Amino acid sequence: MMNLKNICSIMVLTATVFSNAVAQKRPVDYVNPMIGTARMGHTFPGATVPFGSVQLSPETDTLSYEHEGKYNKDVYKYCAGYQYEDNSIVGFSHTHFSGTGHSDLGDFLIMPTVGKLQLNPGVAQDTRTGYRSKFSHQNEVAEANYYKVLLEDYNVQAELTTTERVGFHRYTFPDSKEAHIILDLKSGIYNYDGKNVWTVVRVVNDTLVTGYRQTHGWARTRTVYFAMTFSKPFKSYGRKSFDKNQVYRGFWRKFNQDENFADLAGKDMVMYFDFDTNKDEPVQIKFAISPVSQSNALQNLRAEVPHWDFDRVKEAGKSKWNEELSKIAIETITEDDKVNFYTAMYHAYLGPTIYMDVNGQYKGLDQEVHTAQGFTNYTTFSLWDTFRALHPFFNILQPSRNADMVESMLAHYDQSVLNMLPIWSHYANDNWCMSGYHAVSVIADAILKGVYKGDPHRALEACIATSNRRDYEGIGEYIDYGYIPHEVNSNSVSTTLEYAYNDWCIAQLALKLGRKDVYDTYMKRAQNWKNVFDPSIGFMRPKDAKGNFVKDFDVLDTHGQGFIEGNSWNYSLFVPQDPNALVALHGNKKRFVNYLDSLFTMELPDKYFENTEDITRDGIIGNYVHGNEPSHHVVYLYNYAGTPWKTQARVRQILRAMYQARHDGLGGNDDCGQMSAWYLFGAMGFYPIAPGSLHYDLGSPLVKQAVINLDNGKQFVIRTKNQSEKNVYVSKVLLNNKELDRTYITHEEIMAGGELLFVMSSKPVK
Amino acid sequence: MMNLKNICSIMVLTATVFSNAVAQKRPVDYVNPMIGTARMGHTFPGATVPFGSVQLSPETDTLSYEHEGKYNKDVYKYCAGYQYEDNSIVGFSHTHFSGTGHSDLGDFLIMPTVGKLQLNPGVAQDTRTGYRSKFSHQNEVAEANYYKVLLEDYNVQAELTTTERVGFHRYTFPDSKEAHIILDLKSGIYNYDGKNVWTVVRVVNDTLVTGYRQTHGWARTRTVYFAMTFSKPFKSYGRKSFDKNQVYRGFWRKFNQDENFADLAGKDMVMYFDFDTNKDEPVQIKFAISPVSQSNALQNLRAEVPHWDFDRVKEAGKSKWNEELSKIAIETITEDDKVNFYTAMYHAYLGPTIYMDVNGQYKGLDQEVHTAQGFTNYTTFSLWDTFRALHPFFNILQPSRNADMVESMLAHYDQSVLNMLPIWSHYANDNWCMSGYHAVSVIADAILKGVYKGDPHRALEACIATSNRRDYEGIGEYIDYGYIPHEVNSNSVSTTLEYAYNDWCIAQLALKLGRKDVYDTYMKRAQNWKNVFDPSIGFMRPKDAKGNFVKDFDVLDTHGQGFIEGNSWNYSLFVPQDPNALVALHGNKKRFVNYLDSLFTMELPDKYFENTEDITRDGIIGNYVHGNEPSHHVVYLYNYAGTPWKTQARVRQILRAMYQARHDGLGGNDDCGQMSAWYLFGAMGFYPIAPGSLHYDLGSPLVKQAVINLDNGKQFVIRTKNQSEKNVYVSKVLLNNKELDRTYITHEEIMAGGELLFVMSSKPVK
Repeated sequence: MMNLKNICSIMVLTATVFSNAVAQKRPVDYVNPMIGTARMGHTFPGATVPFGSVQLSPETDTLSYEHEGKYNKDVYKYCAGYQYEDNSIVGFSHTHFSGTGHSDLGDFLIMPTVGKLQLNPGVAQDTRTGYRSKFSHQNEVAEANYYKVLLEDYNVQAELTTTERVGFHRYTFPDSKEAHIILDLKSGIYNYDGKNVWTVVRVVNDTLVTGYRQTHGWARTRTVYFAMTFSKPFKSYGRKSFDKNQVYRGFWRKFNQDENFADLAGKDMVMYFDFDTNKDEPVQIKFAISPVSQSNALQNLRAEVPHWDFDRVKEAGKSKWNEELSKIAIETITEDDKVNFYTAMYHAYLGPTIYMDVNGQYKGLDQEVHTAQGFTNYTTFSLWDTFRALHPFFNILQPSRNADMVESMLAHYDQSVLNMLPIWSHYANDNWCMSGYHAVSVIADAILKGVYKGDPHRALEACIATSNRRDYEGIGEYIDYGYIPHEVNSNSVSTTLEYAYNDWCIAQLALKLGRKDVYDTYMKRAQNWKNVFDPSIGFMRPKDAKGNFVKDFDVLDTHGQGFIEGNSWNYSLFVPQDPNALVALHGNKKRFVNYLDSLFTMELPDKYFENTEDITRDGIIGNYVHGNEPSHHVVYLYNYAGTPWKTQARVRQILRAMYQARHDGLGGNDDCGQMSAWYLFGAMGFYPIAPGSLHYDLGSPLVKQAVINLDNGKQFVIRTKNQSEKNVYVSKVLLNNKELDRTYITHEEIMAGGELLFVMSSKPVK
Repeated sequence: MMNLKNICSIMVLTATVFSNAVAQKRPVDYVNPMIGTARMGHTFPGATVPFGSVQLSPETDTLSYEHEGKYNKDVYKYCAGYQYEDNSIVGFSHTHFSGTGHSDLGDFLIMPTVGKLQLNPGVAQDTRTGYRSKFSHQNEVAEANYYKVLLEDYNVQAELTTTERVGFHRYTFPDSKEAHIILDLKSGIYNYDGKNVWTVVRVVNDTLVTGYRQTHGWARTRTVYFAMTFSKPFKSYGRKSFDKNQVYRGFWRKFNQDENFADLAGKDMVMYFDFDTNKDEPVQIKFAISPVSQSNALQNLRAEVPHWDFDRVKEAGKSKWNEELSKIAIETITEDDKVNFYTAMYHAYLGPTIYMDVNGQYKGLDQEVHTAQGFTNYTTFSLWDTFRALHPFFNILQPSRNADMVESMLAHYDQSVLNMLPIWSHYANDNWCMSGYHAVSVIADAILKGVYKGDPHRALEACIATSNRRDYEGIGEYIDYGYIPHEVNSNSVSTTLEYAYNDWCIAQLALKLGRKDVYDTYMKRAQNWKNVFDPSIGFMRPKDAKGNFVKDFDVLDTHGQGFIEGNSWNYSLFVPQDPNALVALHGNKKRFVNYLDSLFTMELPDKYFENTEDITRDGIIGNYVHGNEPSHHVVYLYNYAGTPWKTQARVRQILRAMYQARHDGLGGNDDCGQMSAWYLFGAMGFYPIAPGSLHYDLGSPLVKQAVINLDNGKQFVIRTKNQSEKNVYVSKVLLNNKELDRTYITHEEIMAGGELLFVMSSKPVK
């Protein structure tokens, strides 16, 4: 092993070279939040700090689920509220998902306007029909924790920055007696009649407004509280109720509630605040949110931004980003690679999000207020996506946060009256999106890697309870039959495969804890993937309750065939926990390689692509679908078939093809950072194909060098020799100067610090 | 003054005689909760403890605001949920108003059924159409803190009792494999589409259910949390959603939420729990409520009823009642008088209601959770009614609670973004019902009488702020014009009169606190009643902004004439703060007496009665309306015109006519105890015509004797001589053996203890 002193010398040297080369350009300066804002990336360009509760970003539209009585197919286009191709902005709201394929959030939309007061957003085709405004990308700046745009209809410059729980707005107005700030409390991403359950607003004084909004959306019972303060007193204010249904008003009729009335409640309301402004006068707003109460929101506001210095908040947030991003110092082939790498890291750190007030309180799954004891509570766990690479990435780069995320999941479990770990944790709710019970993967991985230091036995019990929730998505039948019969669940095969992997994770955890009984049970369950493999065709295939494989089966179709977000071709490879057994089931390595080769090279008829969700056409290579997650480990399976050079070539190909430093540079939804985490691992040359295992498969690094500054004070350095655009093959790998005779490294090896040297070549080394 | 020793001797003697005479019958045994349950009394027969949060009572119907698309005139019939004339019971709910003229509450309706499961209440005409059941008054028992009824359709005996925050149900079932407990979470008193905003239910295990219900009714944003536990595990359970509107269900579709599913939320849902029961097997339910959280509800449940002994809870509650009622020991002309008296006292103690958990937490007007520091928080302040006699009664009999009620009002003020004291405090809301800002009366009275011991200056500031809320019901114009112009408010005259009285209260408080500036301002405002007196007709009359009295004015009509719940005839006497000035304005005492005589003796044409709200025909004497509150002081005004014998005769007449010991014995809404408090004072021979004054006008006692056991350890004894049904006149009054030469006593005199002796006569002493 290379000794630490040597490593440090190299590092110092590297840092110096690096620093000279880029002339003070910090990692944070490479972040381009615009990447992925076009097409299917579903990222947002707005301002946030790492894992921030507030993710303050412009909405270019907020489509409804229904449009003219019909299901609106475009509704998912606006998952992040922003589409690069649009040319108008509706306003700036405080909560966003990054990269999801389903929509929600978009709470508390704020829009500055000038002139005639309009309280509806209007239509994109003619921004004069509402409060929205035209804008141009030329007048737009998106940086880490800073967003700026000129609202052309009003000649108002809008600037946004944030702290964890506070959105800070700076609107620079022209001279006007009719300057307004709109606070649209009915607006949300993915709206429909009945989504807004209730809203309360209290105008405490002429600079402070508090309240909350309760919605019934992807999260069934979600309430977000707020406290909003203005840098300048408004001269008047009001609200309009858009509630279409008759609502009992009682003796509130005594008041004119629509003008300058401080005590408001109802559904679907829009507020406005009026100002006189001088030319270039900024009106600033601090807007804090809380999962618990208005007073907590106000406490958050005062604790995090006890001043009106916008630039100070902006710079503090940038520093936080830079600190996080600097944990990996890279040298790359191109400058764009740095943009891609740090933006991927940025996207990876947009979720899960902090879901807790500065005083430690948060709302639990039981809709009760809890106080987090000794951890930070998180929400936004898109686990079907993120168990694969994002949480493993955190286990290396964000161990403390990942431990808290595990703690948050266990708190969720404690609060669950269904005795389940989260499937998709969403603001004190589970939205139950996607399949599997992948929290067990994250938990097992974090415990096996020594990251989660709480009670592992409690964690194991939570995993076991979740995996035995018989009425959840065929678990009962899965246990009884060893697979989910086709009749029971439309995703019977993919879900069976995922449960089998999840069960393997539980087994690994049990093994670690000396629970032989549990280990045996779950290792048995972990074999269930074999029950849906049809050797007669060499594919995973739905089976009915009688044990017969279904007829009329199409291995290419992603719909109605027993799989979710993928076809059998891709999903038949989903045995990350035991690739060798999978290879064996295919007969031999050669046949398995042929299968993989076909996957990447076949011509997929367009009709199959038309049914593929969440990805663009170029998110596909042959029939390999990178834009959806189930195949994220697939490229590394060549390692198990004796053809690692094929892994290397394909990894490099995907890194180049699917991740480009442009607004339209992402080939599919970023999926709460999973796509970005895939990139980060891939670019550094290794990947955790089966979280719960301590192995990382080796691929082909894209960076020239990456220095990982570990939380334990050590450094793990990925170095390359002969790195270039063409030299995508790895001729040999040396760990701490010793050549590796394997295609993986272990977690212990990384955490011990040291150097991993990839010697690159233009030709495969077979 | 009679010395204390003598008084005590008399008392001991009296107590002995009393006790021998009634053979162990306690005050609580005289309570008949059925009084007022017929016609317009709007009382409920169910179980509760004094000032209990839980008031658990049967609903015989729960009409909707709308019926077949039209406004349902009968909706107010069911303010208390129960009408004596009905012959079916829908179920038993946990919250009720007593005696209101407007409807709300009726939270968490529980109904035991047997046989085919039905989840709608059905119609009264045929109880087989739903879960409701026929019942008969023969099989019904209503006592303080105990209610029993046989549900004939199911042969289930239902029994109810309570603690402050827990409803305790005992349902004795027949032998059945189909026994059910229905929990109707959509049912409420005064329902309409959209009233149920949101409901959450969590089935924690097979004996424990928690959740909450949020409604938008008379209280705009009201949430009640609950924890419900069964004495026997249910074998299965389920829910039905009656939500008529499309509600987004998302991935919750993965579950069958309607059967045995523990994690529920939505609108308008009805739950059921199934049991096997043996013959005569009781299934008991403890149902706790909380204004704050499910966990607080559970804490309330465990703290207040940590066992399953129904009878123990019943007796403990009865003891609480007996303790409260025993503070006045009475001798009466008839046994029914005792029933009336103790039932009036019972009704007087049904509100305000405790609105706070055992841990001190409550929800404030700001919709935030607060902890009451050193006081018990109350809600249900129907102040337009209760400032008159109920709170003054509390100042003598419940000083500690009334001090806490004042504290609760000040907390409400602190939480009010409108800077107002409560108008009608209603579960963390103000429902703004009725006119005036009578909280100031209660506050001034409590401070002037030494009952409220908190900061009086803070209290005064709250009174001042409330009285200057310019946008509330004409206050701005009232300040500017000295009256409310007719154009501004449809109740311009009655509201002007009430504000003037309220302002006088503020002045009295200011005087006490040495705030001469405030005193002068408010004494000036207190004269404003003169501005709406039209000397040309001798009546109060609406005036327009130009200072002209309106034309086309009818002094008898209660609608559209500038008065609320009363006509000019009655309201023209509403100057309780200065009867002498009112007499003077009428010219002389004789003319004033003529006015009063006419009021009581005139024949009111039926057409005017038809427009009178909240009272029955026999709630009227001539044109005097006792069933509504504005005239509650009127009968005592004869004292100020030199004809106290007329006060005496009319008081006795009203006591006899309007209060009878029968289910149909109340002549109008009991109005949260105000009607009952009027009775209590009247029956004891004195009445506080102007709270804020320390005087009580003397009338004609109905009791033979009343011993008031004061909280300060002293006793104030009302004795009579020659008391009888015919001897309604008072020939002389002796206070502590000294004949009074005045028609009032003072608060100090009462609180000092002593004896007030009325010498009764069959003839007026002129």
